[in-house]
Amino acid sequence: MEVQDPSLPPFSKWKLHIVSENNFPTAAGLASSAAGFAALVMAVARLYQLPQDESELSKIARKGSGSACRSLYGGYVAWEMGELEDGSDSKASQIADVDHWPEIKAAILVVSADKKDTPSTSGMQLTVNSSDLFQQRIQNVVPNRYEEMTKAIIDKDFPKFAELTMKDSNSFHATCLDSFPPIFYMNDTSKKIVKLCHLINEYYKENIVAYTFDAGPNAVLYYLAENETRLFAFIYTVFQNNNGWEVKYTRKQLDEFLAKFSTCIKDNLACNLDDDLHKCVTRVILTSVGPGPQLTEDSLINPETGLPK
Amino acid sequence: MEVQDPSLPPFSKWKLHIVSENNFPTAAGLASSAAGFAALVMAVARLYQLPQDESELSKIARKGSGSACRSLYGGYVAWEMGELEDGSDSKASQIADVDHWPEIKAAILVVSADKKDTPSTSGMQLTVNSSDLFQQRIQNVVPNRYEEMTKAIIDKDFPKFAELTMKDSNSFHATCLDSFPPIFYMNDTSKKIVKLCHLINEYYKENIVAYTFDAGPNAVLYYLAENETRLFAFIYTVFQNNNGWEVKYTRKQLDEFLAKFSTCIKDNLACNLDDDLHKCVTRVILTSVGPGPQLTEDSLINPETGLPK
Repeated sequence: MEVQDPSLPPFSKWKLHIVSENNFPTAAGLASSAAGFAALVMAVARLYQLPQDESELSKIARKGSGSACRSLYGGYVAWEMGELEDGSDSKASQIADVDHWPEIKAAILVVSADKKDTPSTSGMQLTVNSSDLFQQRIQNVVPNRYEEMTKAIIDKDFPKFAELTMKDSNSFHATCLDSFPPIFYMNDTSKKIVKLCHLINEYYKENIVAYTFDAGPNAVLYYLAENETRLFAFIYTVFQNNNGWEVKYTRKQLDEFLAKFSTCIKDNLACNLDDDLHKCVTRVILTSVGPGPQLTEDSLINPETGLPK
Repeated sequence: MEVQDPSLPPFSKWKLHIVSENNFPTAAGLASSAAGFAALVMAVARLYQLPQDESELSKIARKGSGSACRSLYGGYVAWEMGELEDGSDSKASQIADVDHWPEIKAAILVVSADKKDTPSTSGMQLTVNSSDLFQQRIQNVVPNRYEEMTKAIIDKDFPKFAELTMKDSNSFHATCLDSFPPIFYMNDTSKKIVKLCHLINEYYKENIVAYTFDAGPNAVLYYLAENETRLFAFIYTVFQNNNGWEVKYTRKQLDEFLAKFSTCIKDNLACNLDDDLHKCVTRVILTSVGPGPQLTEDSLINPETGLPK
């Protein structure tokens, strides 16, 4: 715009003072850098009134953190591999916006907020270069699953969505393990959560919960709002001593989860729940499918000093 | 023989009283059932003076426990997949006998003697039926690696043998993780041992140790006799509080391992060894490449009573 109208302030020559804040564990495999880079790219694009759409901006965000390209959109977002050797056409596209299927909720079990052994980007490069199974995943498994997943989202087919989510998480971590030297993101606590989810789905004879693990040990569980009580009868019973529940539920609701487990479920289970599993979880984060980056009038900068508040 | 000579006692009509003993943790993923079934099949074949060779007997042993077919031979043994749909031509063959390359030793770190979650045979069936990566492993990865491994053994190329062993272990466990529901045999202790091995190989800039994990969390480490001191400077330092060392080494030899680590290695390492790792290991078993089943005059049966001694 300053090119078209020289009377406007020459923004492009100004220096920027950027202050950011996140409410997520950093470098723990929970896409904190994705959120941060997406916010940064979107904020700069808005400041300069750049004409690019989210898809073009996603290519820029991707350079800061691969998965940042997804965070430019809300709702259900695909990260497309692209075809060029240098990856420059790899970008995100929206499969459906949040209003299409707002009923999906997420419960994140923060297993460890320690820094990861292996950063995501260098880990992925090692996998690409050394895993004998990776080419099978990328050439056959992922393209088929991409089509199935898109259809499951369009059809709002949660059991299928759940199956695909779990299988793809396992497939990704399998190729990490097949790297040389092997990369381990999941730990014994992650595995116990996987087993708990399969126990729950087997109990209900239906996939009411899906687990997925990114490049870290933390579990992201997806579920439909309508299955909240059936799921949390298990999950709250196991993780009731962890923080995070009170932001969404009243004491009365939480007691109902416990009551459902002890009166309806406990006696029908073939095994006991793991009483110690909550000790390896530091926090529960309850959230849901949401919109993309939001503009806000709130500022983290003190307007008097130009420094962080 | 009783068919050819009716005067011989009709062994085939006798009932057998079989007593067996093993000195290995059972159902812990350490091939205890392989050793047991191989011993049983070999003992019965000798008793009845069956004319079959080890390769034919291996087909029978395989039905008791898949990996039992390998245990009919000593030295370096391959388990061939076969081509028939029903697996009836799957059998073992010897690549080289123990005298070809007797210098390979094994240190088994028994991580847990608990019973496994998933028995090996049903676990493998689940992997065959549900893993999207398994076909790639079986059609491309394993056949290539089989050729390379045979060559490494014939050539007595330990660094290559080690690399192939580690990669194939990782590839197997990757397809277990890619099964649905996923199968986890390795645990956090297994992973720490993997990392320790890579640390050692990186320190020496040469593969002097290889890890492999069967259907359980226990680590089998292979090394050459000539690298014993270089390896055990690390391994004995970490696992000195575990039982099993005294059967093979004198106090003086063990102290030399500790001295080598503390005087030559410690200060050159970029990280500290994990002081707690030994707590998750119950026992060290030191062994080496050996011959196949051995005939013995020792009996586990009391000749007076026909009952176990």
